[in-house]
Formats: sequence, C-alpha cells, structure tokens
Amino acid sequence: MKPAPAYSETAVRRVAAGEEHVDFEDVLAIEEPLEIRLGFPVEGKIEHRAISVTMRTPGDDLSLAAGFLYTEGILNHRDQIVRIRHCGIPAKGKNLQNTIVVELADGVDVDLERLTRNFYTTSSCGVCGKSSIEALHAGVTKLADDDLVVRPDVIHSLPATALTAQATFEKTGGLHASIIFDLEGRVDTIAEDVGRHNALDKVIGRKFMAGKTPLSDKILMVSGRASFELLQKAVMAGIPVVCAVGAPSSLAIEAAREFGVTLLGFVRGQRFNVYAGKERIVYR
Amino acid sequence: MKPAPAYSETAVRRVAAGEEHVDFEDVLAIEEPLEIRLGFPVEGKIEHRAISVTMRTPGDDLSLAAGFLYTEGILNHRDQIVRIRHCGIPAKGKNLQNTIVVELADGVDVDLERLTRNFYTTSSCGVCGKSSIEALHAGVTKLADDDLVVRPDVIHSLPATALTAQATFEKTGGLHASIIFDLEGRVDTIAEDVGRHNALDKVIGRKFMAGKTPLSDKILMVSGRASFELLQKAVMAGIPVVCAVGAPSSLAIEAAREFGVTLLGFVRGQRFNVYAGKERIVYR
Repeated sequence: MKPAPAYSETAVRRVAAGEEHVDFEDVLAIEEPLEIRLGFPVEGKIEHRAISVTMRTPGDDLSLAAGFLYTEGILNHRDQIVRIRHCGIPAKGKNLQNTIVVELADGVDVDLERLTRNFYTTSSCGVCGKSSIEALHAGVTKLADDDLVVRPDVIHSLPATALTAQATFEKTGGLHASIIFDLEGRVDTIAEDVGRHNALDKVIGRKFMAGKTPLSDKILMVSGRASFELLQKAVMAGIPVVCAVGAPSSLAIEAAREFGVTLLGFVRGQRFNVYAGKERIVYR
Repeated sequence: MKPAPAYSETAVRRVAAGEEHVDFEDVLAIEEPLEIRLGFPVEGKIEHRAISVTMRTPGDDLSLAAGFLYTEGILNHRDQIVRIRHCGIPAKGKNLQNTIVVELADGVDVDLERLTRNFYTTSSCGVCGKSSIEALHAGVTKLADDDLVVRPDVIHSLPATALTAQATFEKTGGLHASIIFDLEGRVDTIAEDVGRHNALDKVIGRKFMAGKTPLSDKILMVSGRASFELLQKAVMAGIPVVCAVGAPSSLAIEAAREFGVTLLGFVRGQRFNVYAGKERIVYR
C-alpha cells in the first residue's frame, strides 16, 4: 500500500458576482471511513471484533487506532498491543485500506462494556472492499430528477441573511447553524447547536413533524464544513441544494454527485464554489 | 420544565500581551448529552429502548429527536409518532431533562439494524438524573496535583508556531489540527484530520505507541472549538493544559474544572481566555 494522501483534487466551478464563472481543479481534504477492530488471540488464530467506524482523513491510521483505544480507556499500555495492521481488501476504486486491526497480546482483558455507551459499531466487514458510498449508504436513494434552478444572486444573498437570522452564534462563537431557505432566499427554519449534525436534525425534524418533508424545493445552508454525514442527512430529507460556509470533504462531494445534490462550498460574501450539480445554478 | 437556554455564563480571565488580565463573565454555548429513546406500545404499556446519546445544545429537543430518526431512516412519516416527550429525572444540579422518548404508534416496524452501524447506545437510564459529568465519565480520574506552570508568552507564541507547522490546512481549508507542544512552546507532535477527535487520537496515539504517555508535561492545542469529547480524551492522556483556537462549550469547561485541566479558549494572536485552572498560568 502506498502512503495515503490527506487531500485530493476535484473539478470545481467558482462563481463570483459580476464575473464570468471559472472551472478549475481544487484541493480537498479526504474523508473516508475507518473501521477499527480488535484482534484477540484464540487457539493460535486471531479473532476479529469490529468496535468502531470513524470518518477520518487517511494517514497515520495506526496512531489513530492506538490513540482511540487509549483515550477511550480500552487500553492503557502499549505492551497490550502486539501489532497494528491494515487488513482486508482495498476500498473499491481507491488504493486505500479502510479497515485496521489492533492485535492484542495474550491475556489482555478489555472492557468492551465501555464501548457500548459509545461509537459506531459494525457488522462483519462493514467497509472492507466496498466503495465508501456503498458501505455507508445502504438504503439511501438518489433524489428524483427535477427541473429546479437557483439563481446565483439568491445564493449570494444567503450569508447576509444568515447572519441576521442567527441569534446565539455572535454571543458565544460556539454554535453551528443550519438554515433552510426557500428558493428566493427567504429563511424558512433555523437551528443552532454545538453539534453540526444536531442543528441539521433540528431544522429537518421541525419540517418532518409539520408534515412538510421531503424538502424538495428548499436550500440548506450549514455553517462550517460540509461533511459526509451532513450530506447523508440532506439526501434523506430530499434537499436538492446544500450550501456550506466552509470547505466540503471529498466524500461529501462524492455523495452529492452520487445522490443528485447540488453542493456549494465557501459560500461567503458574493462568491461560492460549485462542487456537484452545477446544472441547477442558472445564470440568467 | 422551563425552556432550556442555549447558553450560560461563566467566570473567565482574559489575558492579553502587555495588558493587565481581566476577570469577567463570558457567555458560552451549552453542551449537554441527550439520550434518545424509542417507546414501543406493548400490552398497554410503553417499553423504552435507548438508541442514541448525542452531545447537543438544549432546546428544541423534540425536533432533534424527530429529525434524527427521520434522517437516519428509522422513521419516514410523522404519523408513526404518537408523541415525543422528555422523561425521567432532571440532570443533577440543572433544571434540565436530558432524556427524551419518541412514542411510536401501534404496529410501527422500525429497522434497528440500521442503528447497529451507528451511534452511541446506552444501558438503561444512561444520563437520567445524573450530572452529565457523572453519566459520561465513569472511569475517568482527576489529574494528579502538579506544580506545573506556563508563562503567558509561551501561550502567545503558539498560534504562529501552529500556523507554520500545519501542512494541509492552508491547501484545503478543510482539516482540524491537534498539536502537542512542550512547555517552552516547541512543537512535539502534530496531526490533521477531517474529524477533530481523530486528529487528537492521532497525536496521542503516537505518544502512546512510543511509550511516552501520560503527557503530564505537555500543552495541547486544537483548532476550532473545545468540546467535551476533546477534554475527555485530553484527561485520559493526562494532558494538563488544553488550548483551543475557538470557544469552549459549557461541558468542556465543567470537565476541565472537575478533572484538573487548565483550559484556554480563543487562543489567537497575543490573546487568550482562561476558563479553568488559571493557577497554572503564571505571569512572572
């Protein structure tokens, strides 16, 4: 296996008010799932038990697995570990192994009860050999085709509108926001939370309880970065256009392209980048 | 129950190069655990099953629970829900209920297999009635007393050093960094990742595998905000001083005070705020 890169390049369209749009290659942080397993020595063989899947940037996976087990209180001395290695089949379409096994020394007793409180767990071979989207997306379906278009000037108006609508952020600097806009850029629903996924669940949950899902004619804006998890939730709610103030991850872009979402990043001032679904952004 | 506030106030010391430090009350985003349960009707009673614990900002918990179940594909129509309510005993020391139950209609069939891939699960009554620290911190012990002191000018030097040391962030704008410094402000270990907890696990994991834990004479700096989860990991690794570029959450501060960590926020340029453990910051 060659060393895993922490970033990759992808085709992006940059849109700025009063300028021609520009297509270019941009650099992105890679996001991929890592399945961490413990390996227990049993009668000369190693029995695997998958204990966690985390969305990570590839690279230094051995340290990540060791640090996870130590900071979660599962292991407390390196001598409990015989070796740490990648295993299984590289992720489809990527020369990248997304499963790692931490082989324990004979007689090491771990308290897996600690983990029942925490963390993703997987059935056997969750992410091994599959593409990440396949592994993570059982049951998610592509958005239906639509003729929905959004004007760039509507997108350009969102940051200022968002700033006016947010209440707590200015007070604490500590909250993520999710805002649902209509296609004219008017605020429909807003929520703030220390967890970006919670802010998104709150706005979608309000619409769900009001019987207003799927959100096929809405624009979502999230503070911070666009992760895979946020894209997944947007797809589940049928949201066709997702705007992030920060950068998207590689896997967020893959998910947007796979499931038919228009994904915009760096939506600030009078500029934004289009990472997927540029056909919905119409300049006239 | 009165409506839950999204923020609270806490005592903070502001330190700036060339100025007297100032003690004041600052506003913080509240972070508290929310346990989400499903309620199944069985022979006239409601059987609870805890399916997730998320660290959230209190407020609109009903929408959060509904949105979570919808975006994770557990429920797809509001008619599947009879009602959503808080339950159990308020968190100790706070007039705040951290458990919510989503009562399902008769005959609603949910695929809990979907959840085995995902999410915190809890044993019965995980967060109910306890203080959050009690509920979340079984097995974590306070740092041992030390005489460790850090000069403010060392802290003031960290942001510039961090910027030089970070590789990928400038390229993508999409990564979190964790950096371990020695007490003179020299970089010891650095890692970057799309997930802030992963970046921290990576730097701690390297020291763990090198036999260099606990990190009792080190300073940790994290990009972004200081969440409870990061503080928990720092305590497990014995790190006495934690610096964040952004704001800390209320629960991160509680954890720092409870477990003896010096917690600094808004560490930028020649300024920082002290939220816990100010005795380790010595001006001479």
